[in-house]
Amino acid sequence: MTSQTTQIELTTGNSTSPQGYLAAGVHAGIKTAKKDLALLVSDPVAQVAATFTTNALAAAPVRLCREKLSGGKARAIVINSGNANACTGDQGMADAQAMVQATADAVGADPDEVFVCSTGLIGAALPMDKIRSGITSAAAALSPDGGAEAAQAIMTTDKGPKHASTTLEFDGRTVTVGGMAKGAGMIEPNMATMLAFLTTDAAVDGDALQACLSQAVEQTFNRISVDGSQSTNDSVFLLANGAAGNTPLGEQHPSWSAFVDAVTAVARDLAWKIVKDGEGATKFVTINVTGAATDNQAQAVARCIGNSILVKTSWCGGDPNWGRLVDAIGYSGAEVREESLTLKYDDEVVIQDGKTDYDRLKLWEAVLAREEFCVNIELGIGSGTYTMYTCDCTEAYVRFNTAYTS
Amino acid sequence: MTSQTTQIELTTGNSTSPQGYLAAGVHAGIKTAKKDLALLVSDPVAQVAATFTTNALAAAPVRLCREKLSGGKARAIVINSGNANACTGDQGMADAQAMVQATADAVGADPDEVFVCSTGLIGAALPMDKIRSGITSAAAALSPDGGAEAAQAIMTTDKGPKHASTTLEFDGRTVTVGGMAKGAGMIEPNMATMLAFLTTDAAVDGDALQACLSQAVEQTFNRISVDGSQSTNDSVFLLANGAAGNTPLGEQHPSWSAFVDAVTAVARDLAWKIVKDGEGATKFVTINVTGAATDNQAQAVARCIGNSILVKTSWCGGDPNWGRLVDAIGYSGAEVREESLTLKYDDEVVIQDGKTDYDRLKLWEAVLAREEFCVNIELGIGSGTYTMYTCDCTEAYVRFNTAYTS
Repeated sequence: MTSQTTQIELTTGNSTSPQGYLAAGVHAGIKTAKKDLALLVSDPVAQVAATFTTNALAAAPVRLCREKLSGGKARAIVINSGNANACTGDQGMADAQAMVQATADAVGADPDEVFVCSTGLIGAALPMDKIRSGITSAAAALSPDGGAEAAQAIMTTDKGPKHASTTLEFDGRTVTVGGMAKGAGMIEPNMATMLAFLTTDAAVDGDALQACLSQAVEQTFNRISVDGSQSTNDSVFLLANGAAGNTPLGEQHPSWSAFVDAVTAVARDLAWKIVKDGEGATKFVTINVTGAATDNQAQAVARCIGNSILVKTSWCGGDPNWGRLVDAIGYSGAEVREESLTLKYDDEVVIQDGKTDYDRLKLWEAVLAREEFCVNIELGIGSGTYTMYTCDCTEAYVRFNTAYTS
Repeated sequence: MTSQTTQIELTTGNSTSPQGYLAAGVHAGIKTAKKDLALLVSDPVAQVAATFTTNALAAAPVRLCREKLSGGKARAIVINSGNANACTGDQGMADAQAMVQATADAVGADPDEVFVCSTGLIGAALPMDKIRSGITSAAAALSPDGGAEAAQAIMTTDKGPKHASTTLEFDGRTVTVGGMAKGAGMIEPNMATMLAFLTTDAAVDGDALQACLSQAVEQTFNRISVDGSQSTNDSVFLLANGAAGNTPLGEQHPSWSAFVDAVTAVARDLAWKIVKDGEGATKFVTINVTGAATDNQAQAVARCIGNSILVKTSWCGGDPNWGRLVDAIGYSGAEVREESLTLKYDDEVVIQDGKTDYDRLKLWEAVLAREEFCVNIELGIGSGTYTMYTCDCTEAYVRFNTAYTS
């Protein structure tokens, strides 16, 4: 088994690749020099779905967007980087509301249809004067070609912008799904953290849109880990503005599953880009767990391995140190039996029915030397499965997160 | 608040400091050059209590000792380092039983009263010929002054041996509690991992002895973390041989709590030595959580902080990066409210009732520059508390665990 790949062909488009979207990315002055404010606008107004962090100390913009989501419509999303507006109390909520109002004024939208996201330093107040003038500049710069600049403006310590798109045909129409994302788990210093914005020109029923997004996120963003830290600001949005002119999609539509697959493919591409951009990461690792008593137990095994610093440092060194994997399997809480455990690095058997053969060490080392490989675990208990995506942990990760000064 | 310290005076004794114990540490040849086999013998036979790893893939010696514990008596414990005898199937169990029999023969004991521990590489078969001759050599070398050599022989990548002792007086008798330990969480490459052996010449009733040990372990070894990995071999033993001649201790004895405190003090000293010897560690950090809805929620908060690689790398850099602590508090699953949260580094206020003041940054940095400091978190919800002990995560940790080759 190799890394799970989708059959859907992706292109290098972005959030303005679908019809009816405008975007811009500008330098508002929150950061010293880089772009730090993005605006994404849908015309016509879009149906919107979103998923948010479950962190109990969710940032003000997250809490505000959760409330606004009940309206189901989005005209615009404003996003700043460099400051997370998290743990900022009543002032933080007032500032998030002010960002919504300023954006509504600048683009001529109903404030109920404007959403707001922030990412960056936790605990500091937003520089609202800079943000207000940044919103004005961004509104003036809105363009159907602005998706790439917006993807730049939402970055924090990302090495580069992350965006993707794909198209599909149905009802005699061409429908495009695009998107952009930023972050790499919560690996950035004080940064909080993962944001993704998916767009489509398909017409989609509201409840179906949320179902589509929840399903796509569960298969993609919820299955990545860089360092096991869930941030205060994680948010994923999906906008559908109907500009493609198709019969509105719902779960009964013959092309429904093709559409969900397309959204999932774009989301997966963005999620994988986040893992590959993990601070200091040199390896992309897919963990496939099968044969667990339940899917939840398979997930527990995958996450204990994917979040073990002992395992992740061994990957960095190309060390097929399977004792550490077995140790993590053992403390996962899942039902396991030594004598029914099988473990492979890609297709190379490491443990078969609980037995190993150290004469095969060179074969294991050859797999671990690859930039991308799979850890395949069969527990031999039941039919529960789970797959997750993670990276190694290197000295560069520690150096980066150590050297930072508040 | 500073690191919790005990009022009990500790000495640099070891597992043979109490009366009626003999020990030895020899080189059996499992390792290239270093001592790798220890023997601890009690004469008279001791009452024994023990706690073991809850890892589902517990090593053969752990599973064997769990069965033997029902007998309640211990004459000898044989311990090898360099090989964990974990994930070794039926052969591993046969080898553990053979170590028991060889030790029983060598010291003239009932095999039911002989216990066995292993620590080292997971998944390889024990070199039984070397171990058998090592047991013979160790039995010949047994001495009432052998505790220090035994503490050497159980080491894996420990920087030095870990042992301690204390005395208390009651019933007109002097009672001594001693002990040795090895390990540093599961930070060692392929090593599995924490072992501790506590001895006393007190006479103690069997059920009371197990209660005493369970209470001491809950307050000490169960509250340390280097890297969040629970090993396949963790074991703590407490032997009480009655050589001091006291009236047997039980929970009704007037000196019971003094005795429990003495055992806990020795256990805490050994547990702290494990954290301070954490691979690459430069800081010893006590996390005190108060004001949680329940003790379990306080524990969840402490463990999310103490096991966050983002938090631990910031400590290494002396960075008072409280956003990462707040993030971990938020994803701990505990009930928290931003507006009732107070956080201090030692006595320096960082957040008071949800509000911070960055003008105090220099004061926070001064605390984080210390080799030992406390993180004090008051959630302001209820009366639940928990304290744990951990260390920072440095580049040296990653380098050590990366460079290892199977």
